[in-house]
Amino acid sequence: MNGAVDLPLELPELSFRAAGESLVRRSVLPSGVRVLSEQVPGARSATVGFWVAVGSRDEHPTEAGHPATYGSTHFLEHLLFKGTAERTALDIAVSFDAVGGEHNALTAKEYTCYYAKVQDRDLPMAVGVLADMFTSSLLDPDEFENERGVILEELSMAGDDPADVANERFFEAVLGAHPLGRPIGGTPETIRAATREAVHEHYRANYRPQDLVVTVAGAVDHDALVAELEAALRLAGWQLDVAAAPVARRSAVPAPLEVGPALTVVERPLEQVNLLVGVPGLVASDERRPTMSVLNAIFGSGMSSRLFQQVRERRGLAYAVYSFAPAYSDAGVFGMYAGCAPAKAGTVAALLRSELERLAEHGVTAEELARAAGQLGGASALALEDSDTRMSRLGRAELTLGEFQDLDEALRRIARVTADDVQQLAADLVSRPFSVVAVGATDEAALSGAADAAPATVVA
Amino acid sequence: MNGAVDLPLELPELSFRAAGESLVRRSVLPSGVRVLSEQVPGARSATVGFWVAVGSRDEHPTEAGHPATYGSTHFLEHLLFKGTAERTALDIAVSFDAVGGEHNALTAKEYTCYYAKVQDRDLPMAVGVLADMFTSSLLDPDEFENERGVILEELSMAGDDPADVANERFFEAVLGAHPLGRPIGGTPETIRAATREAVHEHYRANYRPQDLVVTVAGAVDHDALVAELEAALRLAGWQLDVAAAPVARRSAVPAPLEVGPALTVVERPLEQVNLLVGVPGLVASDERRPTMSVLNAIFGSGMSSRLFQQVRERRGLAYAVYSFAPAYSDAGVFGMYAGCAPAKAGTVAALLRSELERLAEHGVTAEELARAAGQLGGASALALEDSDTRMSRLGRAELTLGEFQDLDEALRRIARVTADDVQQLAADLVSRPFSVVAVGATDEAALSGAADAAPATVVA
Repeated sequence: MNGAVDLPLELPELSFRAAGESLVRRSVLPSGVRVLSEQVPGARSATVGFWVAVGSRDEHPTEAGHPATYGSTHFLEHLLFKGTAERTALDIAVSFDAVGGEHNALTAKEYTCYYAKVQDRDLPMAVGVLADMFTSSLLDPDEFENERGVILEELSMAGDDPADVANERFFEAVLGAHPLGRPIGGTPETIRAATREAVHEHYRANYRPQDLVVTVAGAVDHDALVAELEAALRLAGWQLDVAAAPVARRSAVPAPLEVGPALTVVERPLEQVNLLVGVPGLVASDERRPTMSVLNAIFGSGMSSRLFQQVRERRGLAYAVYSFAPAYSDAGVFGMYAGCAPAKAGTVAALLRSELERLAEHGVTAEELARAAGQLGGASALALEDSDTRMSRLGRAELTLGEFQDLDEALRRIARVTADDVQQLAADLVSRPFSVVAVGATDEAALSGAADAAPATVVA
Repeated sequence: MNGAVDLPLELPELSFRAAGESLVRRSVLPSGVRVLSEQVPGARSATVGFWVAVGSRDEHPTEAGHPATYGSTHFLEHLLFKGTAERTALDIAVSFDAVGGEHNALTAKEYTCYYAKVQDRDLPMAVGVLADMFTSSLLDPDEFENERGVILEELSMAGDDPADVANERFFEAVLGAHPLGRPIGGTPETIRAATREAVHEHYRANYRPQDLVVTVAGAVDHDALVAELEAALRLAGWQLDVAAAPVARRSAVPAPLEVGPALTVVERPLEQVNLLVGVPGLVASDERRPTMSVLNAIFGSGMSSRLFQQVRERRGLAYAVYSFAPAYSDAGVFGMYAGCAPAKAGTVAALLRSELERLAEHGVTAEELARAAGQLGGASALALEDSDTRMSRLGRAELTLGEFQDLDEALRRIARVTADDVQQLAADLVSRPFSVVAVGATDEAALSGAADAAPATVVA
C-alpha cells in the first residue's frame, strides 16, 4: 500500500510501504500505547520520540483558589530529565552523551515530545531510558526548586529575544483569548507560583498508557522495538493488558475566535523593529492545507518569493522577511515577518499587507504554481533524508492528522492545487481581521494603517 | 587507502576510500582550481560548496585616504547573489527554489563559502549556477546600494541579539588587535562608507582560479563533476590551461597576541546577563587539537559535562551553559558561556573560571575520558550522515588543515589522548590571560574577580 492511510485509533496493526521504499508499521497495544515505526533501508541511525497529545493549550487559569497552571507542561518536561528510581539526572545525561547521541524534548501548544537520535546499535538503550523517564520520573522536590530557577532563566532568555517576544504577542493578538494564543512556557509569575503538586497532577493525569505514542524512524525493526518497549514499560510497573482507548486530539472544527488587539507595540530600545502582520489561518484538518502550502511557498518562502523580492531585493528594507502558516487542531495563524529600521516600520507593515491583498486581487501565475510544486517536492525530499523529520511526521500523523501521507501522496495533493484555489484562499485570508505586532523603537501612528481599526495596546 | 591523507597543494589527482566506504577524490586543474568530492553510497542528494580562503581577517584598516574595508568580504558575498550577465538575481533564486534546494553563503573569519544542497539530478544545475555567480557577478551599482540597506539591517539584527554582541566583544577581548578579533560583517560605519570600487577590487583579487576550491559530498560522480565545472568555468571565460599555484592559508605558527580589555561590560536593559569568560586557545594545526576536543567534551559539551552539571543541574543558575574552542590558522579561543540573572553574574563568572582551574588542578577521571571518546565518535558519525557536514569537512581539509582525516583516523587520535594530556592542556589554558565579557544589566565590581586585573571597558 502506498499513499494516504487512515490511522484509526484502535486498529491493532498496520503495515505499508511509504514512498522511497521505507516500511511504515503501526501497533496499538491493548493498553492504548501506540507504536509507529518507519524503517528506512540503508539507515545507520534512528530517531525515537515519546509523545503525548498535551501542550500549553491544555493548562488552566486560576480557579477555586488554585493558581494558574500556565507553564506546567513545560515545567514537567524539564523534570522528566531529573531522575527516576533507576537513574539520576546525571545517569540519564551520561546514557546519551556516552554514545554521542542527541537527546532533548519539546513542549508545544498541543503536544509534548521527548526524543533522541542515536546510532542503530544504541536504539534499545534510547528506548529504555526514555521509557524510564516517561513512566517513572520522581519529580523530586529539591530538583523541582532547582529547575524552577533554570526555567526562569529560559524565560528570561526568550524575553531578551525580540523575535521571540514578537511571536508570542502575535499569537495573543491573532487568537485572542483562545488557549492557543497563550505562550508555551507560562510567565515568570506562573512559574514562581507553580507547585510540585500541580505539576505532579498533570503528570499523573496525562502520561498514562493510552496517552503514549512512540514513533521511531531510521534503522529500526518494528517487532524488536515493540518487544523492547513492552519490556521497559512492564519493568516500570505499567499494566499493558488492561484495555484502554487511546487518546488523540483530532478536531476538524475551527473554534470561534475573538481576536485580540489589532495593534500591539512593545517599546524597546532596539536597532530594529521586529514586525509581524497577519490574520487567523487554517486548522490542521482543513482541506485547503495543500493550497496554503502552495500559497506560502509563492508568497513568502524562499529567495524567489514575492515578499523576499518586494521587501528585500527591490527595496532593501529588511534582511529577514518571510511568511508562515502554522495549523493546530481548531485554530491556525497566517503571519508575515520582517525586521526593519524603525523609520521604515510603517512602510514595511503596509507593504506586507498590500502584497497579500495583491495576491487576493490578481492571483498567481502558472509559472509560480509550477515552481511552488517543485519547491515543496524537493524540499520535502531533502527533509525526509533526516530520520528526525520522519519521526516527527509519524507523530503528527498519529496525534493530530489521524492519517499518514507518504511523500508521493502529499505531492499529488499539491499538484492538484489550481491558481484559482490560491487566489480564493488569499481572498479569504485578507477578509479576516489583521493584527500587527511591533517590538522595538517605533510608534503606533506609523503602523495603524496596516492593522484593522482598533485602539493599540502599548506595552512599555 | 584509509585514514589521514596529506593534501599537497599541487598534486594533480588523489583517490581513496574514507571510513564508511565513501570514495574521496581530489583533482587540481593546471589553473590551480581544486575539486574535491566524496561519493557516499546510497545518497540521493548532494551538497556543493564553492570556497575561497579569504575572510574578514584579510580586510584592511583605513590607509592612504582609502576607508577601511571591514565588512567588504561579507558585502561581496551578498552581491554574488545579485546577478550576472546570464542570470538576474531572481533567476538565481528561481533556479534553486524551483527544485526545493537550499542555497546560501557563509562569510567567516578565514574563508567564504557559497553552497547548495539539492537532489542528485539537480547537481549539474547547482554547479553551473554557483560557477556563474562565482565568476561573473556584475556588482551592479544599483544593486550595490540596495544591498547596503539589507546588510545594515543584518547588522542591526545581530546588534539586537545579546548573545551575538557578547560573542563579537569576546573575540575582541581575547584576541585584541589581531585581525581575527574583528567582527566578520564590519560595522554600520564601514558598511555606510563602503565603495563599489573597493568591493570590486576584493572580488578581482581573490576570486581567481587558483583561489577556488569546489567540494561536493553525497550523490556525486567525480569525473562528471570535474567536466561540468570545467565547462561552466570556460563558459565564463576562465583560462584553465594557464599554470598557477593554488592559494591556501596553512600556518602552523601561533601569532603573538596582545589581548584586549580584561573586562568588557555592555550595559543593556535586559533580563539576563550574557556572560563569556575565556582565554586564547589553540591554532588549527596544534597537535593538541584532539586533546582540546576531549577537554571540551568533558568540560562543557552535553548535559553530562561539568559546566552543565555544576552551573545548571546543581545550582539552577543558567539555562544555557557550555564551552567552545574555535581554532584558526594562527590563533584560537577557549570560551565559556552562560546566560544568567544579573544578580548572579559575579557568582557565575567566578564559577566558570574556577571549574576550569579545578580541571587544571585535579584532572579528569578515566570514566570521563572514555565517555568523551564515545561522545565524540557517536556525534561525528551522526553528523557525517548529512552531506553538508562532509562537504564542509572537505573544504576545511583543503583550505585550512592541508590534510584529510577520515572518521576512523580522527577517532584513533582521540583514543590516544590521556588524562595527563587533558590536565596539562587545562593547566596551559588557565595560565593564559582571562577575559570576561558581559552584556546586560550588570556591574563591573561583581565581575572583576573572574577577569585578570585590568581596568574595565564599559560600553553604554
